[in-house]
Amino acid sequence: MRIKGEYESELLTKIFVGWGFSNKKASLITEVLSYADLRGIYSHGIQRLKMYEKKIKAGYINQEATIQIVRQTPNCIVVDAHHAMGQLASIEVMERIIRMAKKNGIAFATVRNSNHFGAAGYYAEMASRSKLIGFAATSTNPLLVPPGGKAPFLGSNPFAVSFPMKKNDFVFDGATSAVSLGKIEVLEKLKKQIPGEWAVAEDGKLEKKPKNVLDNLTKENRAGGVLPIGGLEESNSNYKGFAISLIVEIMTSIFAQGSIAADLGNKKHDISHFFMVIDPTLFISLKQFKNHLSDMLGRIKKSETVDGKPVTLPGEKEQIALQQNSKYGIDLDVETLKEVRKICAALEIDF
Amino acid sequence: MRIKGEYESELLTKIFVGWGFSNKKASLITEVLSYADLRGIYSHGIQRLKMYEKKIKAGYINQEATIQIVRQTPNCIVVDAHHAMGQLASIEVMERIIRMAKKNGIAFATVRNSNHFGAAGYYAEMASRSKLIGFAATSTNPLLVPPGGKAPFLGSNPFAVSFPMKKNDFVFDGATSAVSLGKIEVLEKLKKQIPGEWAVAEDGKLEKKPKNVLDNLTKENRAGGVLPIGGLEESNSNYKGFAISLIVEIMTSIFAQGSIAADLGNKKHDISHFFMVIDPTLFISLKQFKNHLSDMLGRIKKSETVDGKPVTLPGEKEQIALQQNSKYGIDLDVETLKEVRKICAALEIDF
Repeated sequence: MRIKGEYESELLTKIFVGWGFSNKKASLITEVLSYADLRGIYSHGIQRLKMYEKKIKAGYINQEATIQIVRQTPNCIVVDAHHAMGQLASIEVMERIIRMAKKNGIAFATVRNSNHFGAAGYYAEMASRSKLIGFAATSTNPLLVPPGGKAPFLGSNPFAVSFPMKKNDFVFDGATSAVSLGKIEVLEKLKKQIPGEWAVAEDGKLEKKPKNVLDNLTKENRAGGVLPIGGLEESNSNYKGFAISLIVEIMTSIFAQGSIAADLGNKKHDISHFFMVIDPTLFISLKQFKNHLSDMLGRIKKSETVDGKPVTLPGEKEQIALQQNSKYGIDLDVETLKEVRKICAALEIDF
Repeated sequence: MRIKGEYESELLTKIFVGWGFSNKKASLITEVLSYADLRGIYSHGIQRLKMYEKKIKAGYINQEATIQIVRQTPNCIVVDAHHAMGQLASIEVMERIIRMAKKNGIAFATVRNSNHFGAAGYYAEMASRSKLIGFAATSTNPLLVPPGGKAPFLGSNPFAVSFPMKKNDFVFDGATSAVSLGKIEVLEKLKKQIPGEWAVAEDGKLEKKPKNVLDNLTKENRAGGVLPIGGLEESNSNYKGFAISLIVEIMTSIFAQGSIAADLGNKKHDISHFFMVIDPTLFISLKQFKNHLSDMLGRIKKSETVDGKPVTLPGEKEQIALQQNSKYGIDLDVETLKEVRKICAALEIDF
């Protein structure tokens, strides 16, 4: 079923208000979830409500929390989010470091004691909408199995980068594991098999059933999990995918002195983020930057391909989905609709 | 044949002096090449001499060049390397931004009109040896075929990150393509086939013969090339590998206003670099940082694996090779020995 973006936003805001957030806070959280759904990143939109509900009810998310700046220099803030909703902490932190980068050229933040922040691209894009370069990364629950391993150790550890462009900003947003957990959840809801080398069972063999992966990752003694970019084989450079995830883990959990992914989920629930903003006019005029980047991307689009179809650039699928979904509404699967209806019923919200 | 590290260093210095570099400059270049060979990164050591010789003789590398700081802020320098040897420009730039980061917490540099700089890890590690976090990236000649494409567009676009550790610093250094060109050159020298999904021919099909890949990449109308991390299939997340390479391309060529990889090699020869240094004590004490990171890496090493062998961490293979090669000498293949002998003969250097 397709539901209009505006309608989904109203609904989301009502739900978060129902869960005890102020109107202002509920609107901000809604913006991040709606950003994902409108761009076809369904794994990070309204389908995450069930997870947020669980965390709010368990007390891992504190609706009243305000973030605390623990340390500050002209280029860096160290933030304790005091278990605020990840979206609220992250928007406030990005607003601060955007101001700092406008003044000093570059600024970054480490954030501890936060929660799941939704789509990383939202925060990176806050910077590029301000004519700056944005970077956002987060730790997550354990998900990624190191090459040869039996259990997840690293998170999906997504990062996003956004560069200001003439028209649509260039945004890359992706898990540094082969896929995010959300993508496997979506397949399970659609009752589809896993394509490609995404996940393994405890014995290190490929796992094709989304349900088995999800069960293995949610039980207390987690087993198996998602593979790095590069999949199963060393000869396909999976050690590079693993290294990239590990670097994001260091930039988030270690920089922020938070729990590492391996400890999250069962007993610990403190997610860490890393954000960075760079003013490109430190080294190039904004016009030159945009022109040079647009020219290069244009040439990739025009380059010859085997099947004649143009190369897909990072963020393009999301731009196409944004146009479609803004026009025709957001396409929600049956399972997600059921979950949202249940949540609405409990809060006595019409849906 | 194994040759002692000290002997290789002496030889390299003599060769670069023979090619017109001052003693000081020749020693610095030697250090970077020897760094790679000692760590078993043979693709970036003495086997690259032939390529450097070609570039020096063609006048793409200027032995007399000194770098110029085009723009400077407390956190950023924009550098024109005036076609200096990449190693010389990069060492000087890193030394400068290390000083800047010690003072201001964070500093970065964009470098244009440079040349092939060898192993990126060397520069990242300069920072971590100074108790700072280092990042280094470079553009390269065209090598990587975008998913579905017929010709290389992006470079191998390697990056390196180094974090200060208690004992050996944590260093990741790798091409963001499935492999670097050097790895394929080494296979060709060893007369081995390509394992895994590394490269395609012009028709988009997997190419297993190193010679074909090298021929296709060195002819004037380049065709085929190396695949992104993730290989051939979208279902194996090759679009993520492609995005990561593209981001490095933007951070190097676009930030530095240099030629993009697609234009390098035939007519243009200006390589661009990006370097960044962060002082971890901006957000955490050095001791806490090292402890937290060591603990995490130690736990990965102790985690259960399918075959009982511990997980290999980024940089570990290089550390093992460093111990071996420091003790027994650097193992050079027959082809490389031939090339070096030819170079030595032309310069009347005993080898």
